Amino acid sequence: MHGAATSSELGVYAYAATQVKKAMEATHYLGGENFVFWGGREGYQSLLNTDMERELNHLARFFEAAVAYKKKIGFNGTLLIEPKPQEPTKHQYDWDAATTSNFLRKYGLIGEFKLNIECNHATLSGHSCHHELETARISGLLGNIDANTGDPQVGWDTDQFLVDIQEATMIMLSVVRNGGIAPGGFNFDAKLRRESTDVEDLFIAHIIGMDTMARGLKNVAKLVEDGALAELVRKRYQSFDTEIGAQIEAGKADFDFLEKKVKEWGEPKVASAKQVNPNKLIFHI
Amino acid sequence: MHGAATSSELGVYAYAATQVKKAMEATHYLGGENFVFWGGREGYQSLLNTDMERELNHLARFFEAAVAYKKKIGFNGTLLIEPKPQEPTKHQYDWDAATTSNFLRKYGLIGEFKLNIECNHATLSGHSCHHELETARISGLLGNIDANTGDPQVGWDTDQFLVDIQEATMIMLSVVRNGGIAPGGFNFDAKLRRESTDVEDLFIAHIIGMDTMARGLKNVAKLVEDGALAELVRKRYQSFDTEIGAQIEAGKADFDFLEKKVKEWGEPKVASAKQVNPNKLIFHI
Amino acid sequence: MHGAATSSELGVYAYAATQVKKAMEATHYLGGENFVFWGGREGYQSLLNTDMERELNHLARFFEAAVAYKKKIGFNGTLLIEPKPQEPTKHQYDWDAATTSNFLRKYGLIGEFKLNIECNHATLSGHSCHHELETARISGLLGNIDANTGDPQVGWDTDQFLVDIQEATMIMLSVVRNGGIAPGGFNFDAKLRRESTDVEDLFIAHIIGMDTMARGLKNVAKLVEDGALAELVRKRYQSFDTEIGAQIEAGKADFDFLEKKVKEWGEPKVASAKQVNPNKLIFHI
Amino acid sequence: MHGAATSSELGVYAYAATQVKKAMEATHYLGGENFVFWGGREGYQSLLNTDMERELNHLARFFEAAVAYKKKIGFNGTLLIEPKPQEPTKHQYDWDAATTSNFLRKYGLIGEFKLNIECNHATLSGHSCHHELETARISGLLGNIDANTGDPQVGWDTDQFLVDIQEATMIMLSVVRNGGIAPGGFNFDAKLRRESTDVEDLFIAHIIGMDTMARGLKNVAKLVEDGALAELVRKRYQSFDTEIGAQIEAGKADFDFLEKKVKEWGEPKVASAKQVNPNKLIFHI
Repeated sequence: MHGAATSSELGVYAYAATQVKKAMEATHYLGGENFVFWGGREGYQSLLNTDMERELNHLARFFEAAVAYKKKIGFNGTLLIEPKPQEPTKHQYDWDAATTSNFLRKYGLIGEFKLNIECNHATLSGHSCHHELETARISGLLGNIDANTGDPQVGWDTDQFLVDIQEATMIMLSVVRNGGIAPGGFNFDAKLRRESTDVEDLFIAHIIGMDTMARGLKNVAKLVEDGALAELVRKRYQSFDTEIGAQIEAGKADFDFLEKKVKEWGEPKVASAKQVNPNKLIFHI
Repeated sequence: MHGAATSSELGVYAYAATQVKKAMEATHYLGGENFVFWGGREGYQSLLNTDMERELNHLARFFEAAVAYKKKIGFNGTLLIEPKPQEPTKHQYDWDAATTSNFLRKYGLIGEFKLNIECNHATLSGHSCHHELETARISGLLGNIDANTGDPQVGWDTDQFLVDIQEATMIMLSVVRNGGIAPGGFNFDAKLRRESTDVEDLFIAHIIGMDTMARGLKNVAKLVEDGALAELVRKRYQSFDTEIGAQIEAGKADFDFLEKKVKEWGEPKVASAKQVNPNKLIFHI
Repeated sequence: MHGAATSSELGVYAYAATQVKKAMEATHYLGGENFVFWGGREGYQSLLNTDMERELNHLARFFEAAVAYKKKIGFNGTLLIEPKPQEPTKHQYDWDAATTSNFLRKYGLIGEFKLNIECNHATLSGHSCHHELETARISGLLGNIDANTGDPQVGWDTDQFLVDIQEATMIMLSVVRNGGIAPGGFNFDAKLRRESTDVEDLFIAHIIGMDTMARGLKNVAKLVEDGALAELVRKRYQSFDTEIGAQIEAGKADFDFLEKKVKEWGEPKVASAKQVNPNKLIFHI
Repeated sequence: MHGAATSSELGVYAYAATQVKKAMEATHYLGGENFVFWGGREGYQSLLNTDMERELNHLARFFEAAVAYKKKIGFNGTLLIEPKPQEPTKHQYDWDAATTSNFLRKYGLIGEFKLNIECNHATLSGHSCHHELETARISGLLGNIDANTGDPQVGWDTDQFLVDIQEATMIMLSVVRNGGIAPGGFNFDAKLRRESTDVEDLFIAHIIGMDTMARGLKNVAKLVEDGALAELVRKRYQSFDTEIGAQIEAGKADFDFLEKKVKEWGEPKVASAKQVNPNKLIFHI
C-alpha cells in the first residue's frame, strides 16, 4: 500500500526483503538467468506526507542487500529494474530509464543492475519505446524487454500485445545495435483482457506478438544490409569525422581554440535533417 | 535548428562555444553570480536520424570546456542547467531534474553544476513543480528557480506569472528546507503575452508574482512554527527511528537478519497515510 | 464488459433495461429527485471491432425507453447523464459535456436530460472543471455536481475530495450564475483510498470537502458584492453594447452591411485582455 | 489576438466578416468547391475574463451571415469547419468533431456545414484520427481531410506528413464507408519544418504522403474484398439481427417488454470481443 522497500513501515521493508530473498533462492535453484525488480508501488501518492530522500535511501539499502545476497548464494543471473512512471501511484521512483540510471549512479549501484524496458511504461512516461531502449543501451543498461504496448492516448497501463510491425522494427533496431540482449530476452505480460476472454484469444495474441517481433527483426536485417539508414546518420555527423572533430571528442578543444576557429570560419551553415527520409525507410519497408 | 552543443554540425558547436565564452566573460565582468545553460534545442525531433550517444558525448565535452574556462578566468559564480522536456523539440536532453542529474553523474560533472528549476517545465515533464524542486534539493542541486507557471492541461510552455498561493507555499517549503538558495534566487520569465498587451499588465503581473511568492513564504513560516506538517511526516516513519531502523539505514541489516526478524514479528501492519491531512494544512492556511 | 445499453449483445441491453427499470422504481418509491446515468462502460476499447453508429442508436433507444418509463410511473425527478471520457474504456460515448449535448440534440432528447458534471472527469477530458460547468450551464443542462477532484498529471480517475478553495470558488461561480442547481446538488464519491484507510480519514475528508465548498461559496459572495470580476468582463465586450452590436446579435448585420462599416472605420484596434487581473481576484481572495 | 468572429471587439468581428466575404467571392470566381473555416483563435485563454455564451452566440451569427452570403452570390461549394482543440489558445470552440456538431445543432446550422478533419488535431483532442473521421461520418458531416499527422507524445500541432501505412488504412476505411468525400478531398498542410529545409525535402514529403494514402486505399480494397473485418463486426452484433433486435432498433421495445424477456432468458452471456484480431488485419496486411 505504501511500497515495499520504500514503505514508511520498517516491518514492511523487512517482509519485502524476506520475499525477495525467497524468490532469489527459487530463481537460483531453478537455474534462472534474470531477476526483475518491478517497483510498482515504490513511490508516493502525495509528496506532502512523504520523506522522499529517506525512502530513496531505504531503496538503495534494499538493493545493496539484494546484491550482497546474490553474491552470497552464488547466483550469477542479471538483476534488472523495470522503470514505470506511475499508476497506481502518482509518482514511482523508477520513473523512466534516465531516472533509474540516476538512482543507480547516485548510490554506486550502476554496475550491479540492468534495465527491463517495457514499451507501455515508456509511453506512459512521455517517451517513445525506442527512446527508452536507446537511453538504456547507450549506458550499457539494456538487459531485457517487456514487449507490451499501450495506447498513447490512454493514461494507464494496458499491456496489449504489440502488433505494430513498424514499432517492432524500431525495438529490434536497438536490440541489434546492442549486440542482442542475452541472457535477457523478450517477454509478454500476458494477462486476460476484460473484453477479450476466449482461451483462443490468448493463443492468437501470443502468435501475433511473436510474429510481429520476428517481422521487426527481418526488417532490421533489411535496413542493415541496405545501409541507407546508417548512411543517412553518418552523413549528418560527418563534420565531426575530421581532425578538429576528433580533438573536440577527445576533450582537447577548449573555448579559446574554438573561438579562434570561428574567427577563421565565420557563421556556420547547417544542413537539412531530411526528417521524412528515415521515416520512409521504417514505415515503407 | 539542430541544437548548439549537440548540433550535428561541428561549426555550430564551435560557434556556440564562442557565444558561451563571451557571455561568461560579460557575466564575470558585471559581477554576475549565476550562469544558466538553457538547452532549449539540445535534443532531437526524430530519433531515427539522430546519434543520441554521440550528441550527449559532445554535450559533456562542451560543459567540461565551460567549466575549464570558468576556472581559467576566475569566475566563481554558479553554473546552472535548466531542465526542460520538450517544445520545440520532441525530446530535449535536459528532460527533468533526474535526467539532468543522471547526465551530470555519468560524465563526472555532478559537482560543477546546479539546477535551475522552472515550474512550467516541471509540469510539462509530467511532474509537479514541488517534485522537481525536491528531486534537485535532495541531491544538493537546487540552485535557482524560474517562478513561472503553466496550465497543466496545455502541452507547451506558457510562462505565466505564478498567482496560486498554495503552489507558492509548496515551492517555498523546498526553498526553506534547502536553507535558502543563495547565490541563486527567483526570476520571472517576463514575456509579453499575445493577448495581454498593456504596459500596465507587466507591472501588475510582476507585483502579483512577487506578492504570491511572499505569501507563500509567510505560509511556510506558519507551517514551520505550527509544526503539524513535520510532525505528520515524522510519525509516518517513526518505525525507522529505532535501533533496527538505524541498522537498516546504516546498511548493516542483511537479508538473513531481516528474515529472522520477520519470523519473530509475523505479517506487518500498515498505518493509514492520512492523505487529506497534509492537503488541508497547505490549502486551508 | 462491452457496455450495457451499447453492448453488442441484445441480452445485455435487455438486462440493463430491467436494472434501470427497478432502480427507477426504487428511486420513485423513496422520493428521489435525481436519477444519474453513469455510462462507465458505454464506449469502445477498439474502434475496429465496433459499430459505433449502431451502438449510439441503441443508446438513444435505451434513453427514450427510460424517459417513457419515467412518465409512465409518474416519476418527476431529473434524469442526468454523467460525462466521463475514458477509463476503463479507450473511449466513452459521454466523453464530455459538449459531446453528450451533441448526442442529446441529435436524438431529440435535449429537453429530457441534464448533466451531472464531475471535476475529475472534466480534467481527464482535457478541460478545466469550470469549462465543463459553463458548457453545461449555457445550454441549460447543469443539473448536478460530483465534487471530486483528481490530479491533472494522472491519467485516470482518482476521485479525491476537493480541498482547493480556488477551484471551489470557480465551481460556485457557475452554480451561482446558474441560479443554483436544485433539485440537484453536490455529492462526494466517497470511496476508501488504498493508502488512507482509517475510518477517521473519511470523516475528515467529508468535513474538509464541505468546508472547501462553503468557503468557495463565501468567496463568490465577495466577488459578486465587489463586482470587479463582472465589471472586467462587461468592459471587454462593451463594443457590442451598442446599436450595431445589437444589430449583430439580432442576426440583422449581413456581410454587405459589415463591409460598409469596415470601410468607414478602418483597421480595428484591440484592447488588452488583462489576463492576470481575474486570476488575482480568484487566487488572492 | 482574441479571435475573429468571437472577438470581444465588434470592429474585429466586422473586419473578419469582410475578409471572409472577399475570400468567398474569390473562391466562387475561381470555381472553388470547398471553403474551410479554420477557427484557430476562436476560443479563450482564460475563462475568467471570457463571456463564453456571448462569444458562441456571435460565432453563430457570423456563420449564419456566411451562409446567407453564400446563397446570395450563388456559391454552391461546401462550407467546412476544421475542429482543433487548442494551441495557441487554451480552449478553442471547435474542439473536436462532436463539439463542433453540438454547436451546429444548437444553432440550427447542421445542414449548412461539413467538417474538415485533421489527424493532428484529432490526436491533440485526445482521440484517434479514425475516431474523429467516424464521428463525422455517422452524422453525415465528413467533408474533407487534412492528411497531416503529429506525434501523440507532443502537445502541439506539428503538421507532419503522414507516412504510417496502417494509419492511412484506417483513414481510407472511413472514406470508403462514406462513399468517398467528393467534392472534398485530401490536402497536405505543407509547411517548411524548421530542421528539414531543403527544397527536395518538400518534394519527397509530398510523394511519400501521397504514396502512403494510396497504399492505405489499396489495403482497404483488400480488406473489403477479403471481408474478414466486416464479418467480424457483423458477428459481434448478430443478436440484434433478430426479430427482437429489430423491435429494439425501431424503438418499440419498452422496459416492461424487456423485463418480461429477461425473466424468460435469465442472465445474459457475453462473447469475447477478440480484440487482437482486427488489429492483426490492419497491421499485418
